[in-house]
Amino acid sequence: MEKVNLKKLAEVLNISISTVSKALHNSHEISEETKQKVMAKAEELGYHPNPYAGSLRHHKTNTIAIVVPQLNNYFFIQAISGAESKSQEAGYHTLIYNSNDDITKEASIMHQLQNGRVDGIIMSLSLSTNTYQHLHSIIQSGIPIVFFDRVCHEIETAKVITDDYLSGFKATEHLISNGSRDIAYLSIGKSISIDNKRMQGYMEALSKHNITLDESKRVIECTGTKEIRYNKIHQLLSQKKRPSGIFCCVEALALICYEVCRELKIRIPEDVKIISFSNLPSAHLLSPPLTTITQPAHEMGLQSASLLIKYLENKKFVITNENHILRSELVVRGSTK
Amino acid sequence: MEKVNLKKLAEVLNISISTVSKALHNSHEISEETKQKVMAKAEELGYHPNPYAGSLRHHKTNTIAIVVPQLNNYFFIQAISGAESKSQEAGYHTLIYNSNDDITKEASIMHQLQNGRVDGIIMSLSLSTNTYQHLHSIIQSGIPIVFFDRVCHEIETAKVITDDYLSGFKATEHLISNGSRDIAYLSIGKSISIDNKRMQGYMEALSKHNITLDESKRVIECTGTKEIRYNKIHQLLSQKKRPSGIFCCVEALALICYEVCRELKIRIPEDVKIISFSNLPSAHLLSPPLTTITQPAHEMGLQSASLLIKYLENKKFVITNENHILRSELVVRGSTK
Repeated sequence: MEKVNLKKLAEVLNISISTVSKALHNSHEISEETKQKVMAKAEELGYHPNPYAGSLRHHKTNTIAIVVPQLNNYFFIQAISGAESKSQEAGYHTLIYNSNDDITKEASIMHQLQNGRVDGIIMSLSLSTNTYQHLHSIIQSGIPIVFFDRVCHEIETAKVITDDYLSGFKATEHLISNGSRDIAYLSIGKSISIDNKRMQGYMEALSKHNITLDESKRVIECTGTKEIRYNKIHQLLSQKKRPSGIFCCVEALALICYEVCRELKIRIPEDVKIISFSNLPSAHLLSPPLTTITQPAHEMGLQSASLLIKYLENKKFVITNENHILRSELVVRGSTK
Repeated sequence: MEKVNLKKLAEVLNISISTVSKALHNSHEISEETKQKVMAKAEELGYHPNPYAGSLRHHKTNTIAIVVPQLNNYFFIQAISGAESKSQEAGYHTLIYNSNDDITKEASIMHQLQNGRVDGIIMSLSLSTNTYQHLHSIIQSGIPIVFFDRVCHEIETAKVITDDYLSGFKATEHLISNGSRDIAYLSIGKSISIDNKRMQGYMEALSKHNITLDESKRVIECTGTKEIRYNKIHQLLSQKKRPSGIFCCVEALALICYEVCRELKIRIPEDVKIISFSNLPSAHLLSPPLTTITQPAHEMGLQSASLLIKYLENKKFVITNENHILRSELVVRGSTK
């Protein structure tokens, strides 16, 4: 098929290229009659303007990037699904990047995005991100970022999060009210915003109920490979004086707890009660069904994209440095009964 | 921060714009000394060439699109994860589109991709796709497509699939050898390539073992909302003469079977055995653990991206009309014992 471009259109219509271009851009310099003639011919010949030519003229790509630390994770998938649906609806395209919880990869992605490939970015930090120069650089080059879930407090911009502190508090109180007092908290890293808040909630609930625990034995940082995490949890549950309740910061840790309990023949919930932040669609079908704190993941992605696009479309709208907090839901099931 | 462009660089270096541009593109017309001077200054001032300017010059965007029918599905997520990792490694960017199993949306996405936004496309068809003009148009405009999983046999290109027929055969024989003879097949739509092949395998296994079933009562098309699917499965399992084995074409149907069995107090596997195609990471923790046919989803996405990128990078490599078949794995667990 012959490529139809402005020049070809102009030739066929026997008018100047500049007139064709102005007509297609609805310029007031061109008569309605000419505009309609040009539009009709463009449609007939299947003229598709190159989107990047437009982007060079208008400095707008109609593209946003979503940068997530993991893809094999229901929370992030649902968030991506929400963001993609909003951006498709608004006529935006969505680039996806997996930083794989690696700051080097995250910085490299940011470097690639710095040169005008996207209008804005939605992101959740990698586990290993402890310096922020790559994020400051992006902001300085005029590309807005909206953070969600694992946010960067150092950057002044909008953050879409859930009520992590309150949810951590409620989760712990739920275990206490169901008879557990010796409760372990399984963490993915205290430097992570969400983990930190959830743990504060846990601490506060213990304190309210006058429970004193040895933090070094009950707050377990489960980082590294699945095997390392498995071994840490195995060690915790093999102790003579093992906890009677476990609060998992993320779903992957709860699944490992189930595996370890099965291996050690520890009964859930009789011997140990388990609660976890989780968006697993099969949580209610596990044995026993898992009590979860479920985040509004789809809504978080959607709202992040909405905020970003609202800013991109309306230069009067400013992204303020504020937290947009959506509520998580405690869903009580068999694992804590 | 002041925007650094070619003009600015030329001014600072006191040489012509054309010399700067040639130096940055490593032209043989420019001396090594000048090249190094230009590169150093570009680095120092933070000059990032606009990627779309490059794309207009070279007609190459270094971007591929992945179009999937669903995002809330572990199979597609793992496939996306594989494709994204390959394309990131090869220096490509990945646009993601969810057609939401809707041909109208799928066609609209294809229309948007027709005008040069991407170098190529990886896709899996929507459930409702029954005409293919939107795909032919893309191919005609010179944008290659590699299909995976739900492929379009009408388009002559590479297709990355699993051994659906053989897996369907094996799954059914597994149920038979564990004592089920009255086996139902739960389908998502006979027009879907994968469903069709899996069902052929089911039919063939029944026939090999001299089992004759009333197809109208045992092949159940479960399309529509979750509620509609639930009701169909509820109806099947409420029958006086209900099947003793169920083979689910996709994981979502297996989860509904578990819910219905729980409601009707039907024991798995004592009263009904269940096997399903599934990539659910918690399949082994369900009650009872679910026997699955697990597809190499990550590998399928990775191989689709590899094929596409190999073609894009090497004009001598031709995408041939052939099936690249990866093996699925039968993982026997409690639901069929």
